[in-house]
Amino acid sequence: MNAVDIINKTKNSVPLTDDEIKWLVNAYTEDSVPDYQMSAWLMAVCLNGLTEQETLSLTYAMRDSGEILRLDLPMTADKHSTGGVGDKTSLIIGPAAAACGVCVAKMSGRGLGHTGGTIDKLESIKGFRTEMPLSEFEEILRETGFSVISQSGNLCPADKKIYALRNSTGTVNSIPLICASIMSKKLATNADCLVLDVKYGSGAFMKTRSDAEKLAALMEKIGKAAGKKCRAVVTDMDVPLGNNIGNALEVEEAIDILSGKTKGRLYEICISLTADILELSGKGSRDECAALAEEAISSGKAIGIFKITLSLHGGDPAVCDDTSLLPHARFTYKVKAACDMKICGFNTEELGMVSLILGAGRIAKDDRIDMSAGIVMNVQAGDILTAGETVMTLCSTVCSDFSEAAIRAIKAVNFEKINCQPPLT
Amino acid sequence: MNAVDIINKTKNSVPLTDDEIKWLVNAYTEDSVPDYQMSAWLMAVCLNGLTEQETLSLTYAMRDSGEILRLDLPMTADKHSTGGVGDKTSLIIGPAAAACGVCVAKMSGRGLGHTGGTIDKLESIKGFRTEMPLSEFEEILRETGFSVISQSGNLCPADKKIYALRNSTGTVNSIPLICASIMSKKLATNADCLVLDVKYGSGAFMKTRSDAEKLAALMEKIGKAAGKKCRAVVTDMDVPLGNNIGNALEVEEAIDILSGKTKGRLYEICISLTADILELSGKGSRDECAALAEEAISSGKAIGIFKITLSLHGGDPAVCDDTSLLPHARFTYKVKAACDMKICGFNTEELGMVSLILGAGRIAKDDRIDMSAGIVMNVQAGDILTAGETVMTLCSTVCSDFSEAAIRAIKAVNFEKINCQPPLT
Repeated sequence: MNAVDIINKTKNSVPLTDDEIKWLVNAYTEDSVPDYQMSAWLMAVCLNGLTEQETLSLTYAMRDSGEILRLDLPMTADKHSTGGVGDKTSLIIGPAAAACGVCVAKMSGRGLGHTGGTIDKLESIKGFRTEMPLSEFEEILRETGFSVISQSGNLCPADKKIYALRNSTGTVNSIPLICASIMSKKLATNADCLVLDVKYGSGAFMKTRSDAEKLAALMEKIGKAAGKKCRAVVTDMDVPLGNNIGNALEVEEAIDILSGKTKGRLYEICISLTADILELSGKGSRDECAALAEEAISSGKAIGIFKITLSLHGGDPAVCDDTSLLPHARFTYKVKAACDMKICGFNTEELGMVSLILGAGRIAKDDRIDMSAGIVMNVQAGDILTAGETVMTLCSTVCSDFSEAAIRAIKAVNFEKINCQPPLT
Repeated sequence: MNAVDIINKTKNSVPLTDDEIKWLVNAYTEDSVPDYQMSAWLMAVCLNGLTEQETLSLTYAMRDSGEILRLDLPMTADKHSTGGVGDKTSLIIGPAAAACGVCVAKMSGRGLGHTGGTIDKLESIKGFRTEMPLSEFEEILRETGFSVISQSGNLCPADKKIYALRNSTGTVNSIPLICASIMSKKLATNADCLVLDVKYGSGAFMKTRSDAEKLAALMEKIGKAAGKKCRAVVTDMDVPLGNNIGNALEVEEAIDILSGKTKGRLYEICISLTADILELSGKGSRDECAALAEEAISSGKAIGIFKITLSLHGGDPAVCDDTSLLPHARFTYKVKAACDMKICGFNTEELGMVSLILGAGRIAKDDRIDMSAGIVMNVQAGDILTAGETVMTLCSTVCSDFSEAAIRAIKAVNFEKINCQPPLT
């Protein structure tokens, strides 16, 4: 086999065999196929697509390029979102499902660009360790049913290499490639049940609901073909998930939901996703599972599990009772409405960028994060404000000059004037 | 500007500006855009195409990546074929056009794979030098009107780099890329008149007449847009050009045509291409130019010019009077008809491969050539043979075992049995 023949086949829309895909992925992973051949193939995939069978072969080949996690636990579940802004659902769903007897074993990445990462969020809790031996991870899971660790370097090395190449060759945007990238990691993490949350809208990989549905359907098929209990749902990302964006700010919001203090859209979404996990895990009908999820929170079981998980990871469980123990921003800035207005919605990607500017994220892989930085949304879509009311609050410790962030924050708000000009800073 | 944005534009079929194409070509030539980004872009071009305007920009950018030849001569012409098997037309057209007062200044490459190169053919004449300063090239042109030298390393460095990458990334087969590659070199060689011969059929870049016509039309447009007198014709490559394939064998055949000894299809094609050059150069009507070309040969002027060119290049002009002075193969092998048959045609690409096996060509760039090696076709399409008659003669000095070559040679003949089985060796 050789790379040029394989590239030519995909270029001419001739489906590749399982062996050809396996050969290509392995040869690329071990550096015998160079980047420039792989990128030509990836572009051919972007433009000509892959069949479902080819996507399955690619997913398997990437999964098999490294270690496959084998946890000695009766039933594990995993939840994945395709990159979101202010998405702290994993922090809520995990303890809630664990409270209902389903182990949520999550390997997670760090945030890059405008999207946040679960690992970063948890690390805003002082002392919280996300790097540990698999044996310790397993032990925590056995004790509490919920744990999150950093993605192992040995998991899906092919995906790591291909993902970096896609990022610099304009080949990110392809449903089969996105599917294979996500699913290879999920299959290597090897949970029994998978709930996949595909986001669409500004800032998401998928710009339209229809593309998100295509990706969701494909991932669900691949997951089921690989023997997993699998459900994929699509979520509108044009509305932030909850009010807070930024690491410690999101932990605070997650604690408020987990302890039953706050309800609303974020709470509803978390109950629904938890119910999905429970239903897949055989805990009853959809309605029964939703009731179980609500009960996990109202009874205090969910926050209880979160506390134990925190302490087993070296973090301070007291933050659950007193969120003022979380890092708080030294500087804040209120973005106010310049006139009476109706809030129509937000450019979520742009809000992610504002949060990044404030110090909450990374532009390059090794950037340090300001755990206290981020945005608190003081309004929601549909709200009507009078001039002078606060639209959002920008928070930062590393950045005291809010001018750039504030200008971009204003532009990220879609509103209808009721009385006058655009909102002033 | 950055490469990812440019790749994404072509991926999404958004035309690039002249500046973007210039930036990409320059950045790639000077190594600031890596191979893997360029190959992704090239694949996007293969699948989405380029507009005529983009192709023109690409051609100019590649031309301008290096030196542009400026000869101090009143009117020069150049002829280019898109890779052929047994194509010795340049050796005939050059002296014939020169005899009619049009300077044919040819920069040529070496053969690679199944196609031959004019430089290699001329080097089969003992002493013939193809590497010389441009001043000497110009002097020879002023004296005889015909000279051929090796392509300068400073001409179109962008094309060299891109061509090598295309070759290893399945991105050779693209009409705009082929057009830009050929035309950038032709525009850098900078002759006033260009005759372009686009081949189609087995072994040619263009498999169908319709693709060849598209490429021909595009090249003619680009040539004219660049201010050249330009004509592109298409030629069926499913029939070899003349009877001989291989370096010294082709020189021998060229000498026979140039000195008026042989007529036939090859002679007619050469008269027609020479007439094209003469007409473009303003030497009269098409009929007048054809008559001039025929007269150049019948009068002995053409072979006279070839002789002087040979001696000015250090080669022995006596080969023109006595072709036995050319290298001759030590071993020959006759491929015979096993039964009565009618010859329908040949797989020309495969004949090129047989010639390569016999030692006449290069598989890798630095392979040494057996100048005496090649094939003499003893029959032509349409001929009827009785069993035992010779179909072709294989010639080689480096290879005495003809078994592989003979088997492939037989398979390259399309015939209808008149009486029995396939031809035997």
